[in-house]
Amino acid sequence: MSGIAYCKEGDRVHEFLLIKDVSKGTASNGKPFLTLILQDKTGDVEAKLWGISNEDEKNYSVGAVVLIEGDMTTFRGRNQLKIRNIRLANEQDEVVKANLVMSAPLSAEALNEKVTQYLFEIKNPVIQRLTRSLLKKNQEAFFDYPAAMSIHHNFLSGLAYHVCCMLDMAKSVVQLYPEVNQDLLYAGIILHDMGKLKELSGVTATTYTLEGNMLGHISIMVDQIGEAARELQLEDKEEVLLLQHMVLSHHENPEWGSPKAPLFKEAEILHVLDDLDAKMNIMTRALRKTRPGEFSERLFAMNNRSLYRPVFETENE
Amino acid sequence: MSGIAYCKEGDRVHEFLLIKDVSKGTASNGKPFLTLILQDKTGDVEAKLWGISNEDEKNYSVGAVVLIEGDMTTFRGRNQLKIRNIRLANEQDEVVKANLVMSAPLSAEALNEKVTQYLFEIKNPVIQRLTRSLLKKNQEAFFDYPAAMSIHHNFLSGLAYHVCCMLDMAKSVVQLYPEVNQDLLYAGIILHDMGKLKELSGVTATTYTLEGNMLGHISIMVDQIGEAARELQLEDKEEVLLLQHMVLSHHENPEWGSPKAPLFKEAEILHVLDDLDAKMNIMTRALRKTRPGEFSERLFAMNNRSLYRPVFETENE
Amino acid sequence: MSGIAYCKEGDRVHEFLLIKDVSKGTASNGKPFLTLILQDKTGDVEAKLWGISNEDEKNYSVGAVVLIEGDMTTFRGRNQLKIRNIRLANEQDEVVKANLVMSAPLSAEALNEKVTQYLFEIKNPVIQRLTRSLLKKNQEAFFDYPAAMSIHHNFLSGLAYHVCCMLDMAKSVVQLYPEVNQDLLYAGIILHDMGKLKELSGVTATTYTLEGNMLGHISIMVDQIGEAARELQLEDKEEVLLLQHMVLSHHENPEWGSPKAPLFKEAEILHVLDDLDAKMNIMTRALRKTRPGEFSERLFAMNNRSLYRPVFETENE
Amino acid sequence: MSGIAYCKEGDRVHEFLLIKDVSKGTASNGKPFLTLILQDKTGDVEAKLWGISNEDEKNYSVGAVVLIEGDMTTFRGRNQLKIRNIRLANEQDEVVKANLVMSAPLSAEALNEKVTQYLFEIKNPVIQRLTRSLLKKNQEAFFDYPAAMSIHHNFLSGLAYHVCCMLDMAKSVVQLYPEVNQDLLYAGIILHDMGKLKELSGVTATTYTLEGNMLGHISIMVDQIGEAARELQLEDKEEVLLLQHMVLSHHENPEWGSPKAPLFKEAEILHVLDDLDAKMNIMTRALRKTRPGEFSERLFAMNNRSLYRPVFETENE
Amino acid sequence: MSGIAYCKEGDRVHEFLLIKDVSKGTASNGKPFLTLILQDKTGDVEAKLWGISNEDEKNYSVGAVVLIEGDMTTFRGRNQLKIRNIRLANEQDEVVKANLVMSAPLSAEALNEKVTQYLFEIKNPVIQRLTRSLLKKNQEAFFDYPAAMSIHHNFLSGLAYHVCCMLDMAKSVVQLYPEVNQDLLYAGIILHDMGKLKELSGVTATTYTLEGNMLGHISIMVDQIGEAARELQLEDKEEVLLLQHMVLSHHENPEWGSPKAPLFKEAEILHVLDDLDAKMNIMTRALRKTRPGEFSERLFAMNNRSLYRPVFETENE
Amino acid sequence: MSGIAYCKEGDRVHEFLLIKDVSKGTASNGKPFLTLILQDKTGDVEAKLWGISNEDEKNYSVGAVVLIEGDMTTFRGRNQLKIRNIRLANEQDEVVKANLVMSAPLSAEALNEKVTQYLFEIKNPVIQRLTRSLLKKNQEAFFDYPAAMSIHHNFLSGLAYHVCCMLDMAKSVVQLYPEVNQDLLYAGIILHDMGKLKELSGVTATTYTLEGNMLGHISIMVDQIGEAARELQLEDKEEVLLLQHMVLSHHENPEWGSPKAPLFKEAEILHVLDDLDAKMNIMTRALRKTRPGEFSERLFAMNNRSLYRPVFETENE
Repeated sequence: MSGIAYCKEGDRVHEFLLIKDVSKGTASNGKPFLTLILQDKTGDVEAKLWGISNEDEKNYSVGAVVLIEGDMTTFRGRNQLKIRNIRLANEQDEVVKANLVMSAPLSAEALNEKVTQYLFEIKNPVIQRLTRSLLKKNQEAFFDYPAAMSIHHNFLSGLAYHVCCMLDMAKSVVQLYPEVNQDLLYAGIILHDMGKLKELSGVTATTYTLEGNMLGHISIMVDQIGEAARELQLEDKEEVLLLQHMVLSHHENPEWGSPKAPLFKEAEILHVLDDLDAKMNIMTRALRKTRPGEFSERLFAMNNRSLYRPVFETENE
Repeated sequence: MSGIAYCKEGDRVHEFLLIKDVSKGTASNGKPFLTLILQDKTGDVEAKLWGISNEDEKNYSVGAVVLIEGDMTTFRGRNQLKIRNIRLANEQDEVVKANLVMSAPLSAEALNEKVTQYLFEIKNPVIQRLTRSLLKKNQEAFFDYPAAMSIHHNFLSGLAYHVCCMLDMAKSVVQLYPEVNQDLLYAGIILHDMGKLKELSGVTATTYTLEGNMLGHISIMVDQIGEAARELQLEDKEEVLLLQHMVLSHHENPEWGSPKAPLFKEAEILHVLDDLDAKMNIMTRALRKTRPGEFSERLFAMNNRSLYRPVFETENE
Repeated sequence: MSGIAYCKEGDRVHEFLLIKDVSKGTASNGKPFLTLILQDKTGDVEAKLWGISNEDEKNYSVGAVVLIEGDMTTFRGRNQLKIRNIRLANEQDEVVKANLVMSAPLSAEALNEKVTQYLFEIKNPVIQRLTRSLLKKNQEAFFDYPAAMSIHHNFLSGLAYHVCCMLDMAKSVVQLYPEVNQDLLYAGIILHDMGKLKELSGVTATTYTLEGNMLGHISIMVDQIGEAARELQLEDKEEVLLLQHMVLSHHENPEWGSPKAPLFKEAEILHVLDDLDAKMNIMTRALRKTRPGEFSERLFAMNNRSLYRPVFETENE
Repeated sequence: MSGIAYCKEGDRVHEFLLIKDVSKGTASNGKPFLTLILQDKTGDVEAKLWGISNEDEKNYSVGAVVLIEGDMTTFRGRNQLKIRNIRLANEQDEVVKANLVMSAPLSAEALNEKVTQYLFEIKNPVIQRLTRSLLKKNQEAFFDYPAAMSIHHNFLSGLAYHVCCMLDMAKSVVQLYPEVNQDLLYAGIILHDMGKLKELSGVTATTYTLEGNMLGHISIMVDQIGEAARELQLEDKEEVLLLQHMVLSHHENPEWGSPKAPLFKEAEILHVLDDLDAKMNIMTRALRKTRPGEFSERLFAMNNRSLYRPVFETENE
Repeated sequence: MSGIAYCKEGDRVHEFLLIKDVSKGTASNGKPFLTLILQDKTGDVEAKLWGISNEDEKNYSVGAVVLIEGDMTTFRGRNQLKIRNIRLANEQDEVVKANLVMSAPLSAEALNEKVTQYLFEIKNPVIQRLTRSLLKKNQEAFFDYPAAMSIHHNFLSGLAYHVCCMLDMAKSVVQLYPEVNQDLLYAGIILHDMGKLKELSGVTATTYTLEGNMLGHISIMVDQIGEAARELQLEDKEEVLLLQHMVLSHHENPEWGSPKAPLFKEAEILHVLDDLDAKMNIMTRALRKTRPGEFSERLFAMNNRSLYRPVFETENE
Repeated sequence: MSGIAYCKEGDRVHEFLLIKDVSKGTASNGKPFLTLILQDKTGDVEAKLWGISNEDEKNYSVGAVVLIEGDMTTFRGRNQLKIRNIRLANEQDEVVKANLVMSAPLSAEALNEKVTQYLFEIKNPVIQRLTRSLLKKNQEAFFDYPAAMSIHHNFLSGLAYHVCCMLDMAKSVVQLYPEVNQDLLYAGIILHDMGKLKELSGVTATTYTLEGNMLGHISIMVDQIGEAARELQLEDKEEVLLLQHMVLSHHENPEWGSPKAPLFKEAEILHVLDDLDAKMNIMTRALRKTRPGEFSERLFAMNNRSLYRPVFETENE
């Protein structure tokens, strides 16, 4: 497969890339240089641009598209792109933006349809109306946003894709364990990370908002559910309190941001499915970059473990 | 001083007492007995009522007032009242209810006046209006509620008394450290525990509400501030977010219920003053029951420490 | 539903019960008494037998079946059976043993068939042969044993039932996340707790064996896989090492008994599914005993939480 | 305000500065360079001196005063001074030393007077004599020393200034909570950090002494109180033991250096006030360097938090 | 072997025993009873005395010697003595006190001689003089005191016996690892627990003194070494500081009472030998009471573990 | 003493050295450089080789012997060798390989003899046969391998040397504490780290094997003991289980890799002696590189402590 994420040490790179992040430093010879993070739809890579002019500094800013010629090298076990030539893309280049942005395997439309189907299966009217109302308020951003800044599903429509995978797993859980309340579980999954639409600044070049820093997506969403319930005059319903609790407790542990641990079974299951899907995404992406018989880079969100990619699977292929 | 909290081992007790809690057990001879928690305005004490009849069980329920004759004994280092005679109080007894309930050293009116004065000193109009609005909504309960079920200030008007002590300390802090924003600090103190009015079931025989169990007073209050701000059309003001954060972070540590640690200096000070005033209340009450030269009972909220009451102070008196 | 687990305070009990555990104590009047744990297929309950004779002590031993007349009471929030009459069951009573023992919802045969089907789906010959060989060696006990002494699935065929639920969930995981190696995951699930057949003493009145105490089921099973691989001359295969690692790491955390954390994705998933199925079993059993609107007893294996049973589900029924 | 601490990125610097620390390194071109920490009375900043001669290395040593021309830049979020010209200051420059050293807002004399006043208010003769004696022994250093090497109050007279702020807060505490023993609290505050006069090597270029490394200021001071008490023949007094305990326990937690937690209320209050004043100093200094609407650098002593500086305060100014 | 520690369930007891501890309780029939801890030189056992008179309460106090007839029973896995007859011993009984007190295997004289021999081997004059001086000051108590209230070596001369075992191990360490400084290690061992002579109230019926509670034996001893050094005008010697540090750090971990971890190798070795000898004493005593093939009671000082006593050793005997 | 480990800052180095490790980097001027770890029998040192050619990169690989001329400098408190000249050694140089490799103070033969002697002292036939069999299987590697990759005894024959020191200490323990079973303790010591022969890749340029990563030396050895016991038909013997447990538990703590804590006294002692000997090796090596009156580099395996080397010992010499 082609793309920046699949380049190995020694490969020659000649590609249009989007500047995701820039920072300026001073080399030990006293001259300024830029550290660029360059991305296409497959991933990103760091590159240094030495001996820059004032004009370079202005041109190569976040969001700019550049044509790069260079060689892939490695530094401390991570890829680093050695730039030979760089220039800004221009109109004649006819760069297709979609090739420069990572996005979910499903389109926003497909994800929207999928969530809507699950919403139909919610029978309880309180849970239905509340979830539908909150989804409607956040309609657009919900299907575009990433699920996180860097840890997992940090790509276009990552949030909705994460929700859809969890809903599919939830369906199996409900079938296997009939005591589980399907309505609570589906609604809890749809709502659990919706507060990220206010916690994160946007779809690209994402940072934390002041609201995100001060309250966090969990408290933001508990407040939003309360507001929606008051608007629908459902604020005295037990279901509302239970959904607020599901959001509040879905990180399970106070140290991970949940002031209350899950206090009923659907809240507990929500946490398990959230954790499983996040890990699947982290592991799959890390192992794609790892050769059979080797260990991946250390994964912060997996307790700093390196994961092994077995040999036997590729031998048998 | 007289009152149940000041009785020592060997004292004869003859007093009207309020039944604060009752539970039924079976003795090893197979007969039922009651464990009563009996209180007057100075404190409470455990007592066993052996060999009870069905009528006893009905009569001696939570909230009943009884006339007790008995002897104070000790069991595992704690006082226990040995009942010789017990009967329900009747109208002729003319029991003064105020003598049976612990309450703050200041009346609800005096506390109200004090909080109002501090409210006047808040200059910032956003903080003023928001705090005034929330205080008005909760006016009545705010000056009657205890500050906790059992840990500290668990008495009539305990919440407002706790707030007033913190406001007095805050005044000293503002004078000594001029960089502190007085408005934020005063408002944060007034609002920080207001969510307990929904977390706890009421002024006496207090339990946790479902809302208290599912969300906790911190999340409840963050939501209420949000609602009040929307009503006053202040929802985009930085001050609102800062006050929500002060409430959210005032337990400081995720393990103690705050998903975010304090992120600006007034939030940090709020936590310190809250902690100091709670500890002063716990320590003072424990040491009143401790003889000079001895150690108090273990105090759960002080990391299970026993506190020492020095001798030299009483020698010099 | 009838059965000891469904009795509430105040119910009259008249049932044959199996003595699961007995211990002797001395009452404060100096007379001996027995604490009995009595069970039928729905669950168990504690009972005290006061003022016992030497003959009582001999008769009412572990494994005996007794006819009990009594009343259900509660003590510290847990049910306790007050015995009015007790006698040993005799032949004329024609007690059906199966009514006295908790067992899985599926029979040993059904479970065997299910595991065999999943075994067929394992394509990799190394994994196939190894898993088949170990299953054959442990055939009989595997489908009878409980999965634990007290925490979860502590009933007849509990181990195999736990494995089958996990296999069903694994099937969904494999469908949703195609990068997952089905063969490793299925085999890991079948083998992960097989060491319990040596760790636990047997199907009823289960205790830890010396081997269980000294090595634990994890180390026991790692050794057994090694032995089986040497017998099949597969000891140099990567697959063997991976399966040993899956068993070794399936408790994930050193404090829970795994000296290594999961180091590839199927090992991680094994842990998540094991944890989820154990929790589902614990939660479901606890909530069956809990009334809507109330909290369950504290669950040690769920971090000592009490779980809430919602009201709205029963209102809508 | 002028001074090195108030310079922002892009500012031109032309100032006399004191060399606080120097270390030598080798650049990637193999040439030596110096890393200098340069200070004036407002704070300090790092600077690199590239391509140095042997003479440079001799001249630019700790304690030297230099005239610097340069530009303020930033590196990894911290200021770094880019040196254009540097030379040693000479006599003609008539540099005022007091401008180069950070010091407390109050002079040593004013602090001495303030501590003396509080000492007068101590009524208990044992506590009076002991505190007076220890203060006299350490008179000179006590009013010159910093309170720490780097964490808080690390400036001239920082220790005495820290003590005076705590004494002012203590006065408010005593007024608000009348059960507090003023004499113990004042004396505990004056003595609590006095062991730092032996733990730290001196007023400038401060390092830990061997005694500081081996025993720490807490154990040093417990020993000194014991010695002073024996000299004054007060060694059997309870007050002496209580003061030793206050020093021993004032870090509260074994992990922070206190082998015993505070065991009476004045010891607990001492800890709270020490902590509060240290935090106020850390927060105030960090926020002075932070622009409204931004977060400060990470503060190690505040659990590695970054603190926010609100915007609304400056808007209203 | 005979003696109270060797009695098993079902044994008849007829022995003189010393009352080590008494506490009074109220039975569920409302009558008072005594809980006695009774000891002879082999160990101790709990016993209940039901239905006591006022005279019984006076007679059976701590330190009294009684003649007991009774039966050994067990309660919650621990022995409990069921008293049939009890009376005070009288002069005619000619009870030998030494039979009623646990003591070290070596006499105080033998221990004194042994410590003196090791003292002779200390060559460094500073260490010699200081250790000799402190030993002389504490001569008498040092060879009589227990090493702890309950954890380990809690018997007559337990402290000196613990020191002698450690000295013997230290000799082997010095021989095997020649870089170790014998003088520091021997002196550190002799002094490390000497502060217990002030921390504990005495040889029998031992409690913590106020000094013990407020400072602990570690701080007490650091202060005493300082005092002794000043008397011998050695206070500036590095050796003094090193010995103070060895005492300060010998519990290794702040949570176990050492504010500093060991900072040189002899301090580290002191900790290891202290820990090893304490554990050997705890394990040996626990296993003496355990039958082959069984597990001991839980040992608090061994992380709450139960230890196994192997069968094979006794089979081969 | 001569050798790379004894060089100090400013020393001129002219020596044959073995390349232990190499990694390539890019300097800020864009040119490649090598970071070499160079060793002789006394230790190792880091060196940078700037401005390298392709040929340099090929020549200076792991295992090559080079003649170095250079100067010892320091960087961040650690020695770093500044290379002036470097060339590959050739046949004429007649380099003695033994001078380039660190090894134990005793030869493999001497260590073999010592272990054999201790093996003779094991009386129990089960323990004898099992230990002898396992030693025989691993004969060769056992006396050559290091005991660890980097922490302690990381030199030729380090494993066997570590075992011999522990056996000598064990002999003293058995003499002092007669309840200890000598046979178990000696055998446990000989076997405890034998799994490292499979966990580590070899004697030089040691890395972890896949088996080492997936199972760890503890699980590997538990499995090997099981296999050897089955071969000798001893698999039902208690002694086998006890030896497996000793290996399993010798790191004591789950976090350090032992899923079970030691459950009998010889297992506990094994842990203590293992820990003591490892620490002695770490401390001795670190202090050899430290000047009197200074602190060593931070020691990761000693909780990141720096150790002090006293002055008084060298003064008195």
